[in-house]
Amino acid sequence: MPKLAVAMTPERAADVCSAQTKELLEDRFTVTWAAPGQDLAGMAAGADVVLTSWGTPPLAASIWADGDGPKVVAHAAGSVKRLVDPAVFEHGVAVFSAGGRIAWSVGEYCLAAMLTLARRLPQLDDGVRSGAWKQPHLRGHELAGATVGLLGASSTARALITLLAPFGCDVVVYDPYLDADRAAALGVRTGSLEEALGCAFVSLHVPDVPATRGLVSRKHVELIPDGSVIVNSARGPAVDQAALLEHLLAGRLLAALDVYDPEPPSLPADVLASPNLLLTPHIAGDTAEGHLALAGYVMADVLRYLESGQRGPSFVDPASWSIAA
Amino acid sequence: MPKLAVAMTPERAADVCSAQTKELLEDRFTVTWAAPGQDLAGMAAGADVVLTSWGTPPLAASIWADGDGPKVVAHAAGSVKRLVDPAVFEHGVAVFSAGGRIAWSVGEYCLAAMLTLARRLPQLDDGVRSGAWKQPHLRGHELAGATVGLLGASSTARALITLLAPFGCDVVVYDPYLDADRAAALGVRTGSLEEALGCAFVSLHVPDVPATRGLVSRKHVELIPDGSVIVNSARGPAVDQAALLEHLLAGRLLAALDVYDPEPPSLPADVLASPNLLLTPHIAGDTAEGHLALAGYVMADVLRYLESGQRGPSFVDPASWSIAA
Repeated sequence: MPKLAVAMTPERAADVCSAQTKELLEDRFTVTWAAPGQDLAGMAAGADVVLTSWGTPPLAASIWADGDGPKVVAHAAGSVKRLVDPAVFEHGVAVFSAGGRIAWSVGEYCLAAMLTLARRLPQLDDGVRSGAWKQPHLRGHELAGATVGLLGASSTARALITLLAPFGCDVVVYDPYLDADRAAALGVRTGSLEEALGCAFVSLHVPDVPATRGLVSRKHVELIPDGSVIVNSARGPAVDQAALLEHLLAGRLLAALDVYDPEPPSLPADVLASPNLLLTPHIAGDTAEGHLALAGYVMADVLRYLESGQRGPSFVDPASWSIAA
Repeated sequence: MPKLAVAMTPERAADVCSAQTKELLEDRFTVTWAAPGQDLAGMAAGADVVLTSWGTPPLAASIWADGDGPKVVAHAAGSVKRLVDPAVFEHGVAVFSAGGRIAWSVGEYCLAAMLTLARRLPQLDDGVRSGAWKQPHLRGHELAGATVGLLGASSTARALITLLAPFGCDVVVYDPYLDADRAAALGVRTGSLEEALGCAFVSLHVPDVPATRGLVSRKHVELIPDGSVIVNSARGPAVDQAALLEHLLAGRLLAALDVYDPEPPSLPADVLASPNLLLTPHIAGDTAEGHLALAGYVMADVLRYLESGQRGPSFVDPASWSIAA
């Protein structure tokens, strides 16, 4: 049986690996689980497959220097950019990431944020708690039939598109790598950055790469229509945060921010008191059920790959390295 | 052309009647719009169709006493129970209600409330605003694949079922009037009240009729599993509110309450301070877009009825009067 090194702390293994997946792994591999305090990066040497997650230190390229490193790196977490050096691809290493599974939790967060802000639920809740009843100035809006602009057609965008299906929204996606045919297959249309920003709901789904830093500039924030709802669950540096906060404080826009620049953010008191904001601590991808599914999600693809060379949805395409999250 | 009396204040007409619908009505009827301060109930006499909404006083049965009352009552709002006496059906009057359109806004509210509470967004928002960052004890849950119990298969339940489709939930509906075939057509299954209350998410969709008052008793509240999310957008008296609030204060359950018994509610200070609650002022069915569509929704059916006798989805079936909202 192939050797599997589970290079994550016991606490993390309990977080990302369900009982069912543990059973499957024990059944199909000779598994080494990390002991408390064990050197996690050192576990990769000698294994056929190394299963990693948050907290696993970067895997040094030297592990593969003598041609004896693991053939597969399976990351039961999101981005693999800080985990492996792209040089490992030259050694024929196959890398898998559970980012596609995390994306579902992110999609649910985005829909939650859009609906909650559109209906002014936090403000109405504050009102009831402070003795108010009807507040006609806090009237809600429906999502059904609305225009929704997505920046980026990543896996989180696709999860949100799936969730938006029953709402019959007009979804316009700005992504230089999305062609019209693929957009049509997703049930959306492609558009310019300006078109996407002209929607009643705008959600960011871009990776943190040089091309997306400052993507939404001050000038772009000004293009967003009055009363629109902005959701950023992607990366803080993608938006001119100072400009966005100014427009929020002016009461012109509503926004749900799960990511900031920097993190944790140092937000001024007037921002922290603003009723136009929903602020969360970078948790869009973090749910109990979502995490528990991660090792199973990525290892199902690894098993198929070892049997037949098939590359499932979690396979990290070396050709997309520079534009991936 | 048939005579249409729009028996609502100009403010209400602006709320429920879009410019497009106004044009359609002027095109197909001789329309009388109420002047400010006009006697609204008096407008029905002599009209072929009377279009009503919130604020229209009850239409006295005497309007139909001489056989000359309107043939159609079209209510651009929800329940018609306080508007017309069921005796009007004996005069051959057709009654239409826009409750089915309002149901969509309610469905969006229910989904918003379920997602927001499952992800602990209000508590996480409070945390970020008071200087906290990660709060591992406030971990979110996914809705995907969860068990969802619906009490009542009304139009609001059906709107929510439509919105839940991409989540792949196991939806169990308790409704004595729902048979297994119709449930299967909706993509759900039928179950007992106890089964529906045993779900991770429980949402109420019952009308306020004698049979539903106290439907969820103290004993039933105890059956709801720890950590479940309860949404009541239906009617306050359907639940033993005191029992529910006790379980919420004990931290065992999360709940979104849009309706109360009585309304507005007088909630004790500990309830108003509870982080396990999302409190809104009976607005689940109230959105700008939803309201603006109401006259058009109900009058589209009225036009078909006048032309062909066809009864669209907004037709109020006299046979269902006693169990309708």
